[in-house]
Amino acid sequence: MINRATPQSAVTLHDIYLARARIAGQAVRTPLVKSVSLSERFEAEVYLKLETLQPSGAFKLRGALNAIAALDEATLERGVTTASTGNHGRAVAWAASRLGARAIICVSGLVPANKVAAIEALGAEVRTVGRSQDDAFVEARRLVAEEGMTLIEPFDDPLIVAGQGTIGLELMEDVPELDRVLIGLSGGGLLGGIGRAVRGINPRVRVTGVSMMYGAAMIESLANGHPVEVEEVETLADSLGGGIGLDNRCTWSLVREVMSDHHQVSERAIAAAMVHFLEVEKMLVEGAAVVGLAALEEHAIDIRGEKVALIVSGNGVDMATWQRARGMTDT
Amino acid sequence: MINRATPQSAVTLHDIYLARARIAGQAVRTPLVKSVSLSERFEAEVYLKLETLQPSGAFKLRGALNAIAALDEATLERGVTTASTGNHGRAVAWAASRLGARAIICVSGLVPANKVAAIEALGAEVRTVGRSQDDAFVEARRLVAEEGMTLIEPFDDPLIVAGQGTIGLELMEDVPELDRVLIGLSGGGLLGGIGRAVRGINPRVRVTGVSMMYGAAMIESLANGHPVEVEEVETLADSLGGGIGLDNRCTWSLVREVMSDHHQVSERAIAAAMVHFLEVEKMLVEGAAVVGLAALEEHAIDIRGEKVALIVSGNGVDMATWQRARGMTDT
Repeated sequence: MINRATPQSAVTLHDIYLARARIAGQAVRTPLVKSVSLSERFEAEVYLKLETLQPSGAFKLRGALNAIAALDEATLERGVTTASTGNHGRAVAWAASRLGARAIICVSGLVPANKVAAIEALGAEVRTVGRSQDDAFVEARRLVAEEGMTLIEPFDDPLIVAGQGTIGLELMEDVPELDRVLIGLSGGGLLGGIGRAVRGINPRVRVTGVSMMYGAAMIESLANGHPVEVEEVETLADSLGGGIGLDNRCTWSLVREVMSDHHQVSERAIAAAMVHFLEVEKMLVEGAAVVGLAALEEHAIDIRGEKVALIVSGNGVDMATWQRARGMTDT
Repeated sequence: MINRATPQSAVTLHDIYLARARIAGQAVRTPLVKSVSLSERFEAEVYLKLETLQPSGAFKLRGALNAIAALDEATLERGVTTASTGNHGRAVAWAASRLGARAIICVSGLVPANKVAAIEALGAEVRTVGRSQDDAFVEARRLVAEEGMTLIEPFDDPLIVAGQGTIGLELMEDVPELDRVLIGLSGGGLLGGIGRAVRGINPRVRVTGVSMMYGAAMIESLANGHPVEVEEVETLADSLGGGIGLDNRCTWSLVREVMSDHHQVSERAIAAAMVHFLEVEKMLVEGAAVVGLAALEEHAIDIRGEKVALIVSGNGVDMATWQRARGMTDT
C-alpha cells in the first residue's frame, strides 16, 4: 500500500471519498429539491438538501456510521458509547445497531422518559447517571477507560467530519455549478466537512455559516483566535448549542480555513423561517434546520442569479416548540 | 453568478464535475470489475475499467458528449465536424446524433467502405475528400470557416479532457483506496483527465502512462521539453498513434503535471496481453486497451498489495489483427 495515514487533525477530500464508500447503503443519499417559492423570492435557484430524510432525522448518522465502520473488529466487539440525547445520540444508536455493535448512550436522570424510550427503540442501551450532561459524560469516559468501549465524538473527530462531508460530494454531483451553500454552524463538523468537499472540488463555492445570535461557540472562538467557552442560551435552534471544546483538535482550524463568511440570526428570524418551512415547504423541522433561510431574510444576503443550497437537517421538534415559534411571528 | 470561466488551457476537478452532469444519462457509467486472474498473478487487487462497454466501444464519447453538450443552441444548430475514422469519429457521430446535432465526419478516399458505413450507421454524414487524412482535415476546417460548424477536437481541448476525466471520478467512487491507475497515453486527453480527477481527490494516487515503443508522440515531447513530431509506425496499439500538435495548448502541460511515470511496451508484450484478455478475461479488445497489462508484465512493475486500475478502452479490432497478435505470441 502506498497510502499513508492522514494526520489526525486534517480532513482531506480523499477522506470524504473513503467515508462515502463506508456509509454507502446505510446512510440515505438524500434528495436535493428546488424550492420554487424561495427561488422566486430571492431571484435565484434555491435548493434544499433534505437531511431530515435520514433514518435518524438528521445528518449526524453519516459521521457516526463512518466512525463506527472504520473500527477494527476487536474494537467494534467492545462496543461504542456517547453522551447525548439529541440528534447525535440517536445517530450513534442507529448506526451501531445497523453495524451490529453494542452501544451505550449515557444520559442524566433529568432526561424525560420519552427521549430514553426513543433511543432504546433504535436498539441502544441507555444508562442513566447523575443529574447533568457532565455526569453522563463522566460515565461515558469510564466505559472507555474501564470497558474498552469507543467514544463516538459528536463533531471533533476527522472521521465524523469526513462522514458529514459526504453531503458536499452529493451537492456537487447534483448541482455542479453551485455558487453557495448555507450551513448551520455549531461544533463545525457539518460545516467543516461540507466546506472541505465543495471547495476541494471548486474553490470558488462560497461557504456561509449561520448560528443563532447568542451562545455561538464557534463564532466566538474564531473571533478570539482560539477556542473559548460561551454561556448556553435557550434558542429555537437548540441543536446548534454547546461548546466546541477548549482542546479542539480538528474543527476549529478546519472551519477557519473553509468558511467564507458567517451570520448570526435572531430567534424571530428562525421562527419565521420555521413557519415558512411548514406552511410553504410542508416540512416540520427544527430551528437549526432553517437558519440558512433565516440568514438570507434577516441579513438580506444578495444571492440573485446564484445557485444556492440550504442544508436542512433535524426534525427533532415537537408541536409545543412549533407553537412557540408560530407565536413569535404573530406579534 | 460568481463563477468565472476557467482559463482555456486548464482543466480543474470542478470542470470534471460539470462534465459529469452534462454527460449523465448519455455516456455509460461503466463497470469496474476485479480480475481474479490478474490479482493473483500480481499479488494485488487489479481492476478493469471497461470503457469497451460504451455505446461506441471506447471512452471517446465522454469527451465528445461534453464538448457538444456545452455548445449554445445557435452553435449546435450549425452542427459539428471532425476528421477521424477511428474511435473519435465514431464517438462524435454517436454523440451528435444523441444530442440532435448534425455531424459531418470528413474522411479521405482511401478509407474502406465498411468504415464509412459504420459511421453513417451512427447517424452522421460522411464526406469523402482527397487521398489523405490531411486532406480530410482541410475539409473539416473549411466547414468550420465557411459553414459555421464546430470542430470537435480529438483530445487537445479542455472540454474533451474534462469529459474523459469523468472516468477518474467513477474510479475513486468505486475504489476510493485506489493506489495506481495505468492509462494508455496518446494525445493525453484520457490520461490528463483521469489524472486530474484522481489526484485532485487523492494526490497520492500514482498515474502511470503507457505507450507503444515507437511513435509515442507525447513521451518524445515530454523528453524534449516541448511538443515534437514523430514518425508514425505500425503498431497493434494503433489508437495510440498520431501527433499531439506542435501548437498543443492543453494536454502536453497537463500530462507533464499529473503523470507520475511512464513506460513503453513492445509489440510482443501488447500481443501477449491481447491474448490474455481474450483467453482469460474473455474480451476481444484493441491493442491500445491492453497496454497497462503489457507494461506490468514487460517492466515487472511491482504492485504487490496495491489496488490498481487498468483503463480498458477500444474494441475496434478485427479477427485478422487478432490473428496477427496471436501469431506473435507463438514464436
